[in-house]
Amino acid sequence: MEHTYRLIISCPDRVGIVAKVGQFVSSHGGWIVEANHYADPVSGWFFMRHCIKAESLPFSIDEFKEKFSAIASEFSMDWAISDSKQAKQLVLLASKESHCLVDLLYRWHSGEMHCDIPCVISNHDDLRSLVEWHGIPFFHVPVDKNNKAEHFHRVSQIIAEHKADSVVLARYMQILPADVCSTYEGRIINIHHSFLPSFAGAKPYHQAAERGVKLIGATCHYVTQDLDAGPIIDQDVMRISHKDSVEDMVRLGKDVEKMVLSRGVRLHLEDRVLRHGNKTIIF
Amino acid sequence: MEHTYRLIISCPDRVGIVAKVGQFVSSHGGWIVEANHYADPVSGWFFMRHCIKAESLPFSIDEFKEKFSAIASEFSMDWAISDSKQAKQLVLLASKESHCLVDLLYRWHSGEMHCDIPCVISNHDDLRSLVEWHGIPFFHVPVDKNNKAEHFHRVSQIIAEHKADSVVLARYMQILPADVCSTYEGRIINIHHSFLPSFAGAKPYHQAAERGVKLIGATCHYVTQDLDAGPIIDQDVMRISHKDSVEDMVRLGKDVEKMVLSRGVRLHLEDRVLRHGNKTIIF
Amino acid sequence: MEHTYRLIISCPDRVGIVAKVGQFVSSHGGWIVEANHYADPVSGWFFMRHCIKAESLPFSIDEFKEKFSAIASEFSMDWAISDSKQAKQLVLLASKESHCLVDLLYRWHSGEMHCDIPCVISNHDDLRSLVEWHGIPFFHVPVDKNNKAEHFHRVSQIIAEHKADSVVLARYMQILPADVCSTYEGRIINIHHSFLPSFAGAKPYHQAAERGVKLIGATCHYVTQDLDAGPIIDQDVMRISHKDSVEDMVRLGKDVEKMVLSRGVRLHLEDRVLRHGNKTIIF
Amino acid sequence: MEHTYRLIISCPDRVGIVAKVGQFVSSHGGWIVEANHYADPVSGWFFMRHCIKAESLPFSIDEFKEKFSAIASEFSMDWAISDSKQAKQLVLLASKESHCLVDLLYRWHSGEMHCDIPCVISNHDDLRSLVEWHGIPFFHVPVDKNNKAEHFHRVSQIIAEHKADSVVLARYMQILPADVCSTYEGRIINIHHSFLPSFAGAKPYHQAAERGVKLIGATCHYVTQDLDAGPIIDQDVMRISHKDSVEDMVRLGKDVEKMVLSRGVRLHLEDRVLRHGNKTIIF
Repeated sequence: MEHTYRLIISCPDRVGIVAKVGQFVSSHGGWIVEANHYADPVSGWFFMRHCIKAESLPFSIDEFKEKFSAIASEFSMDWAISDSKQAKQLVLLASKESHCLVDLLYRWHSGEMHCDIPCVISNHDDLRSLVEWHGIPFFHVPVDKNNKAEHFHRVSQIIAEHKADSVVLARYMQILPADVCSTYEGRIINIHHSFLPSFAGAKPYHQAAERGVKLIGATCHYVTQDLDAGPIIDQDVMRISHKDSVEDMVRLGKDVEKMVLSRGVRLHLEDRVLRHGNKTIIF
Repeated sequence: MEHTYRLIISCPDRVGIVAKVGQFVSSHGGWIVEANHYADPVSGWFFMRHCIKAESLPFSIDEFKEKFSAIASEFSMDWAISDSKQAKQLVLLASKESHCLVDLLYRWHSGEMHCDIPCVISNHDDLRSLVEWHGIPFFHVPVDKNNKAEHFHRVSQIIAEHKADSVVLARYMQILPADVCSTYEGRIINIHHSFLPSFAGAKPYHQAAERGVKLIGATCHYVTQDLDAGPIIDQDVMRISHKDSVEDMVRLGKDVEKMVLSRGVRLHLEDRVLRHGNKTIIF
Repeated sequence: MEHTYRLIISCPDRVGIVAKVGQFVSSHGGWIVEANHYADPVSGWFFMRHCIKAESLPFSIDEFKEKFSAIASEFSMDWAISDSKQAKQLVLLASKESHCLVDLLYRWHSGEMHCDIPCVISNHDDLRSLVEWHGIPFFHVPVDKNNKAEHFHRVSQIIAEHKADSVVLARYMQILPADVCSTYEGRIINIHHSFLPSFAGAKPYHQAAERGVKLIGATCHYVTQDLDAGPIIDQDVMRISHKDSVEDMVRLGKDVEKMVLSRGVRLHLEDRVLRHGNKTIIF
Repeated sequence: MEHTYRLIISCPDRVGIVAKVGQFVSSHGGWIVEANHYADPVSGWFFMRHCIKAESLPFSIDEFKEKFSAIASEFSMDWAISDSKQAKQLVLLASKESHCLVDLLYRWHSGEMHCDIPCVISNHDDLRSLVEWHGIPFFHVPVDKNNKAEHFHRVSQIIAEHKADSVVLARYMQILPADVCSTYEGRIINIHHSFLPSFAGAKPYHQAAERGVKLIGATCHYVTQDLDAGPIIDQDVMRISHKDSVEDMVRLGKDVEKMVLSRGVRLHLEDRVLRHGNKTIIF
């Protein structure tokens, strides 16, 4: 993977943004290897993501930030710059279901997904051996209806101690408390096993079977305080038929869930997801 | 298309149905060219569709009905037999949007869809020339908020006069009254421009844009008295992105709508859709 | 559709292209509503497409060309600018099969596809009435093995007389002579009824049935002198099973063919297809 | 999973097969839980797969075989009956690439895939730890251009010693010698990383990049002595764009490869794949 700086910008749209940013970068010899723009005609907002070869610039990322701040102010930019070499710290939360967790661990272990996984937390101990085979610390934090507050307190603590940039709910199946949601706003990714907004909440495959749909799906989204209602990153579906029981759907759906989750996590890790209100721009 | 009789059966599941039916057919020299079965383990119900070469049987379809009735009684069958040569009479209802109507007319005109279309009814006159080019009578029955009862009365009348077997709502955009729904139960097909149960009701693409979904869809279903809640025949989706405006979704969605509707209508015309409660078995 | 100028650029990649172009546009008050870039790391080539609001610029498209030529020279650009209001002249060639032709005519007639269709040419007279219903002149130019040269001479003449920008082979089924291919290089679009490079040449569905594939497809590509080997614009597939005969594949495939062709034509009409060698960049 | 006997039949088509088999089963009280038929009008051949509840029959599978043989002879059937409880012995062959192997091991370990995996054989030692974590013996049998005969001899020996019913080439990347292919005819499954027949042979993603296709695919097929030309079990594709390098294709393609391979292996394990010439009937 080429060493790049990723410059991410959201701001009110007006003439000259592209030129100004482009000129800033090129005046310092910056080589843009990937550029994406989107002007939303409805909201009048402008979004931009540039990847600049790190070695083409004569200064560090900190100096970039300093020099760029004047332009950012001029255009009222909401902006960030990240270093492709700086691996994000991704804490994974799971329950008993292993398919999403195993899939993410595999992609990390095989070098396909660029991040660090400082630890895995689960409310069940079942997946310990698997996680530890990968050399990753595993925390078993049980939960029942009487110790929810304590559970989430301990989970938050572990997440914080491991300096998580982002958290992935790999079929964690617990509803996070509001404070955790807001601390990690735009940085907690969930996979819901339905094509949202259909079948939000519990037992979506049972709901799907009840309604007699001909496709089942999965949705990867950022977690907000509204259950299954956060900004959608990716979705996909697969065809089923009357022959498929709820158990078949559960089995078949796993493949969609893990594909959609891994694609969403990858997009997030590469800073390709810009949130705007309850929607996402994906570059 | 080969001349066949289509034997469609639903009944409580038990040992010996397949054998009994198979033996009945073969004892008369009947050649089965296509056979489908499904035993639903949840409801304990059995479904079957056989296509028998018409010429292989030594008697008419009426005689078949007579001879088969004893077996049907024995197994408490809900059953029917149809003649592939007997074209179904399909009345099409439309509004201003032409894409679904044109698609169905084209498939009929090019010989891809085996049915008769005795007439097209619309609450707007826009599509008259197109329909009449195909040699099909066009009825313009205007509707506004003050003449709904009158409109539906006239529409029902025209449908009845043209001896419709089935009715297709090709983006008709009006909610049929309960009596029409029940007269043609299981024989009125609608296309809804969303992936149901998401975005039932009005302006589904606007709802989809609002929610920020990454796929849009369409659903072909039998009309019941509950809006957009009848048994689903087929569904499909297509990928969109943040770049697609509501207008883009409307345009892109047309292709999904007409594909899903034409597939659903084709399945219906070939007697491949068995309804059971609010679900469908598709053979 | 908003009135825009589309600036299309291909050139060797180097630092500063985006900035230079962006600055040129913004220095004249140009409002960029859509921007796409791609730098191919293998060929070292850079590709760009900008849509600029026409009304935001203080001069005409001709003046734009004049003013921009210095930058174009500096960066050795292969470039063009087009006016979204200037409808392309699209001549359609067909044979007996109507599905692709009808689909394109419908999209044009319903205002979905922005172009003029000055005429349709076919080697059979079957589709005359349909074409003429749309108010489009129809030319019947028969062909047999003895009059090929004469046929193509007449076809070329009609194309030229109607000042075609581009030609679409809507299942025309004849191999165009080399001189026509080179006169309209990058402007003749064909639909081949297979997932190329599988099953090039004649009777692809028969070839597919013979090989026992589980998906059939269609490919939309620019015509070159090498049969079915030109730059691919779009492709798609659909699932089939052992139950589908060659006749079923022919029928099912029509839906893929017309979807892929119409998408490809739309991309071409919007100047979204940049050719580079035998490949395409699609913006 | 319900305990069933799977009766698989291929024979020349004629009147009375379904009835005869159905009557045989029902006369012994056999409860058919799933039934599939297909009559191929081109070859005049008939195919059938019945799942019969084991407990509904008053005799063993051996007695079934004995009793059924008269019918089988009468209709010149090529037939088999298998016991769903009898796990197939699946030997996996791999090389260095882990994605397909890990995927199959996961599906086996999580109970999704019903079979035994007596061992894994690889020409590299890289995947030993992973395989052994699953409690499965791992055999490292190196190969180079000078010891091919020896390698394949040893591989065949291990396969035989582990009483393999079937062999899966999970990106094994070696061409099996003719004698192995014929010993395990219809029981060696390969995954090829292209949409066959496009890009058979070496480096299919490089071939795909060269041709500029817009979809990449994978094909799961039975191995025959003709390279990448055996009967196809399943195929699938995914969309790519000009932005995807060969390396991206390799990465993205892995997901298609493992999905297609696992679906093909599952169909094989459930005796749902009937071969006829170079084609497959999938029930």
